[in-house]
Amino acid sequence: MNFLSDTTAPAHPLVLKALADANDGFAPSYGADPITARVRSRLADLFETDLEVLLTTSGTAANALALSILSGPDETIICHDEAHIHRDERGAPEFFTGGAKLLPIKGANAKIAPADLKAVLAEWPQDFVHTPPPRVLSLSQLNESGCAYALAELDALIGPAKAAGLAVHMDGARFSNALVRLGCSPADMTWRRGVDVLCLGATKNGAMAAEAVILFGAAKARFARLQARQKRAGHMLPKMRYVAAQLDAWLAGDMWLTLARDANAAAAALAQGLSALDGVELAQPCDGNEVFVRMDADIAGRLQDAGAGFYAWPDGSARFVASWCTGIDDVEAAIAAARG
Amino acid sequence: MNFLSDTTAPAHPLVLKALADANDGFAPSYGADPITARVRSRLADLFETDLEVLLTTSGTAANALALSILSGPDETIICHDEAHIHRDERGAPEFFTGGAKLLPIKGANAKIAPADLKAVLAEWPQDFVHTPPPRVLSLSQLNESGCAYALAELDALIGPAKAAGLAVHMDGARFSNALVRLGCSPADMTWRRGVDVLCLGATKNGAMAAEAVILFGAAKARFARLQARQKRAGHMLPKMRYVAAQLDAWLAGDMWLTLARDANAAAAALAQGLSALDGVELAQPCDGNEVFVRMDADIAGRLQDAGAGFYAWPDGSARFVASWCTGIDDVEAAIAAARG
Amino acid sequence: MNFLSDTTAPAHPLVLKALADANDGFAPSYGADPITARVRSRLADLFETDLEVLLTTSGTAANALALSILSGPDETIICHDEAHIHRDERGAPEFFTGGAKLLPIKGANAKIAPADLKAVLAEWPQDFVHTPPPRVLSLSQLNESGCAYALAELDALIGPAKAAGLAVHMDGARFSNALVRLGCSPADMTWRRGVDVLCLGATKNGAMAAEAVILFGAAKARFARLQARQKRAGHMLPKMRYVAAQLDAWLAGDMWLTLARDANAAAAALAQGLSALDGVELAQPCDGNEVFVRMDADIAGRLQDAGAGFYAWPDGSARFVASWCTGIDDVEAAIAAARG
Amino acid sequence: MNFLSDTTAPAHPLVLKALADANDGFAPSYGADPITARVRSRLADLFETDLEVLLTTSGTAANALALSILSGPDETIICHDEAHIHRDERGAPEFFTGGAKLLPIKGANAKIAPADLKAVLAEWPQDFVHTPPPRVLSLSQLNESGCAYALAELDALIGPAKAAGLAVHMDGARFSNALVRLGCSPADMTWRRGVDVLCLGATKNGAMAAEAVILFGAAKARFARLQARQKRAGHMLPKMRYVAAQLDAWLAGDMWLTLARDANAAAAALAQGLSALDGVELAQPCDGNEVFVRMDADIAGRLQDAGAGFYAWPDGSARFVASWCTGIDDVEAAIAAARG
Repeated sequence: MNFLSDTTAPAHPLVLKALADANDGFAPSYGADPITARVRSRLADLFETDLEVLLTTSGTAANALALSILSGPDETIICHDEAHIHRDERGAPEFFTGGAKLLPIKGANAKIAPADLKAVLAEWPQDFVHTPPPRVLSLSQLNESGCAYALAELDALIGPAKAAGLAVHMDGARFSNALVRLGCSPADMTWRRGVDVLCLGATKNGAMAAEAVILFGAAKARFARLQARQKRAGHMLPKMRYVAAQLDAWLAGDMWLTLARDANAAAAALAQGLSALDGVELAQPCDGNEVFVRMDADIAGRLQDAGAGFYAWPDGSARFVASWCTGIDDVEAAIAAARG
Repeated sequence: MNFLSDTTAPAHPLVLKALADANDGFAPSYGADPITARVRSRLADLFETDLEVLLTTSGTAANALALSILSGPDETIICHDEAHIHRDERGAPEFFTGGAKLLPIKGANAKIAPADLKAVLAEWPQDFVHTPPPRVLSLSQLNESGCAYALAELDALIGPAKAAGLAVHMDGARFSNALVRLGCSPADMTWRRGVDVLCLGATKNGAMAAEAVILFGAAKARFARLQARQKRAGHMLPKMRYVAAQLDAWLAGDMWLTLARDANAAAAALAQGLSALDGVELAQPCDGNEVFVRMDADIAGRLQDAGAGFYAWPDGSARFVASWCTGIDDVEAAIAAARG
Repeated sequence: MNFLSDTTAPAHPLVLKALADANDGFAPSYGADPITARVRSRLADLFETDLEVLLTTSGTAANALALSILSGPDETIICHDEAHIHRDERGAPEFFTGGAKLLPIKGANAKIAPADLKAVLAEWPQDFVHTPPPRVLSLSQLNESGCAYALAELDALIGPAKAAGLAVHMDGARFSNALVRLGCSPADMTWRRGVDVLCLGATKNGAMAAEAVILFGAAKARFARLQARQKRAGHMLPKMRYVAAQLDAWLAGDMWLTLARDANAAAAALAQGLSALDGVELAQPCDGNEVFVRMDADIAGRLQDAGAGFYAWPDGSARFVASWCTGIDDVEAAIAAARG
Repeated sequence: MNFLSDTTAPAHPLVLKALADANDGFAPSYGADPITARVRSRLADLFETDLEVLLTTSGTAANALALSILSGPDETIICHDEAHIHRDERGAPEFFTGGAKLLPIKGANAKIAPADLKAVLAEWPQDFVHTPPPRVLSLSQLNESGCAYALAELDALIGPAKAAGLAVHMDGARFSNALVRLGCSPADMTWRRGVDVLCLGATKNGAMAAEAVILFGAAKARFARLQARQKRAGHMLPKMRYVAAQLDAWLAGDMWLTLARDANAAAAALAQGLSALDGVELAQPCDGNEVFVRMDADIAGRLQDAGAGFYAWPDGSARFVASWCTGIDDVEAAIAAARG
């Protein structure tokens, strides 16, 4: 009954097998290997467009590298007040950009409201030398409350951002969970809506340590700079084939979507079971593999006594995370323990 | 006959096995897992002292993180002119320290001569507000010419550095190769000589992507800062157990030393065989797993025709690197090809 | 009728005279001159305590240098959402700290409400490696709405900040205006309340380009670091005596307080005269030398037609700034023009 | 007999007068004033070309701001080993660029030898992701040994630099002294030879605190970025008219050249008088207002006893600096004291 985080889960066996398969003889270093090339090709097919891809081993690195090519050191990145890049990356975006400002906007369900974005864009000028101008809008999909922006919600934010000249970054640490929720294509959730750079996370959904920074459209022209920043940050691994191998297996045969569906289904079952109990209510809509509930203290106590792992959230709720390997048994056991 | 780099070699099968063994159920994230703890314990035993350990996935990251806790942004790090941190890390030390200066000293065999270090220490004051004061001496062991500092050579550099108040960093990307060459204990080559922070590399000697930043003595007090910098740089992997597992296997049963001895032996055989030929001479003493030779163009041509992989070095020599899996067959084939 | 900013005003004639007096023969460079020493002595007397002083030529530099010794690059500075350091210094605090995060708190009259500060302190942990911990509370006195924190209001913010381990920075670009408003001693408005570092501005109140960063209590121990950062930022002027001379004259005979009282009086007269008109209301209390009003468009039009200079503020109000040399004639002319 | 530094000298009376003249009523802030515009116009005339100008108050700031628009954070700036930017600016270039590397080249008379520059350009690649590529060549004119590069010497360095794609920065803290030495036009010593950005210093030659960063040719397109960096660094003074006024007076009627000629003449007289003595020899050619000599200890002692101020230089020589106000009496007194 470990619902602490999807980062406590192991890797999928096929990911391990891919590592073993890749461990065969010599291979070019630093991303010049054929598996890295294959991952790029897979992603171009899946996203139905030409793109550039850079692989790394942590979502924090992926986000910070992406932001470093979108924002200058004296510019501003707009994000939600609860964004991972703002609260949970120890200032990595500030570090990698050389000092850009993260400008947080509050909002329910960890979503930025279009009116609030517009107000900030009106208040923070683009060409006043005294003020760090907004240059990037960063959106998390799934976001930090486990919610997915609907496509129309993305449009309502990306439209004004683009009109003001901002680039759009998507933190997709749980991209696959959002994607299967919306049931659209990867392209429809990203570049067709104006996303310039996507950080696609596999680590939380079955990989060991593998993330992809994907550049679309005009952003592709910044790939050489991105590579230089990757090297400078110590994220250009010598034996990159092992990162690529994880993604190669993860994308093959739509495993990434299958694992996301499994995790989402486990979370949905948990959300339904818990919220049906007296003394429990959902604190956020459950759009993916995370369940936020508010529950009476005795229920929380029973869960803890039964050994269920979950986190107390700063807002007073409790977060349960399902992963690709969360079994229905665990879900049922947790519901039963909560019921008492 | 791939002698391009030890980073083109695969991982040792026992490293892969350790990954598979670690892939069992849930484990705490971010280094709180039991395998990480075991690695720390192993290192404390091997180095015969209490220490702090931080794991990462690239040598560039390890070096830059280490330097970031030893030098302020307005201070100076002394290193050899050919040091990897100076030439081959795309400014990572400057990035992680927030702008420290790397002050290069030239010298034969990629070694700093004690007199040159003393001259720099005399010229660059410790307490003149206009000048970034030297605060760190960085030494590579093996160094970038494949040479190992003898213990007395280390003393001759570390002594004056310590007397001037500098901390000492050791870039040990090929530490194990130097260690078996000198035949001393890990403690004798590091903290007993005054090394404050060692970056111990496993990637080039049989791991997939695993390096350890080891803090000795008073430097241990900076461990919390090091962890914060690691997180900020995106190098605190969520599923850290997989990095730890590599080092755990690598250190077990002295495998790290066995692999280093094998690589060194292959290099020694190659050095001996090539240098016995007319038209070939060693450009550097061969102390570890790297062989630098100057050779006639026709010999180089024969090697290339035979498919031998090696790099032209900026100084006009050629570099051949042996790895843990370089076979004696490959060595003999290369010598035969060179002989023509 | 120039009410655009106190930075459009000239310097006081006695400041110019002090420059001429200082222009006599040779003097030690970089702050080792006797006038700089005299300024320090004057400030120690005025603030009734031992202190360290560093002189600079802009308020942005003063603030950013001060913050750079209070916050690490991976830490957080709490300020008001409208703070000058957040909106009007082009990211200077992020630059000088090496990437610290500025965490803005909204609040009426550009004041932070104690409850909001406490909520942020509760949400942002001090010792969670993933989150940049709050280390500094920055307060502006006068603040960006022209309001002064009362002493009790300062206590209600500084108390919880100190309890949480934060240092306190005061942006005193208009310190003298606030001081004469509160009628307390400099010590009572600063170190006796827990302020660690004060940026005392003279430029807006009669100097040409002169600001002082003043370290109190334990912060004094960071003076050497502050000097190094000053040099590194290009703010250690070779001929520092000319900056010191301005402050020397400005502090002599309480001229700084006299000029502040004059400016405040002009602003008060303007606030009273304008707010007495139909169609005008004060947008903020007038505590110092700034007047924020909301006024009907025809009134604004009449003012502009009459040549009155003022700024439209982002919130829809209009800002009028009185300086040390704003005459009562100008005030009366503006009121008359507004009245029509 | 103060020969310590030209920064210990006062400002010229006409500079003080210009400040007083500028102190008249209100003026736009932050460089939008008419005096700043006039300085730009003067410089365009003097340099016979269209240009952009940014004013600041210290040479360190001017240099670091200039370099910040020429080099990225992961790139390299080539300079002489004794360059002010390398040794005497506390890492300001590294700070302002966000971590660029300064790559020092040794050479007699503080001059870079063309062959050494070419060797570095050959060794440090432009497009290897692991190495911070050289992007800027920085030259000091006068340099740190008081020597001026002849025009042909400039060509021999700038040519290869340009061919390799580097921008050229000139540190002209003592530009006027070099200019009158060479007897050429400002244009001939700068943009006609390929200089992209000149830092023109007035502080050491009669101003109080005034330097100009001048952008030529294609570099002009980076002016908006330079202004943003200036603001971010706290160097965009609110009352910029007072910096402009100094330069306005300094350039008017060729005063800058007159003062430079006076200082150079004093230095030449000192160099001639001292070097004629037994036990004294020039350590460097005297091309401007600095005299470096090696002298017997008894001579140095007699000078000190007579109250002559000079500095012991790291290489064992002694530096005497003449300024615009160094009188022939002082020079003769020093020579007499040395003679004994």
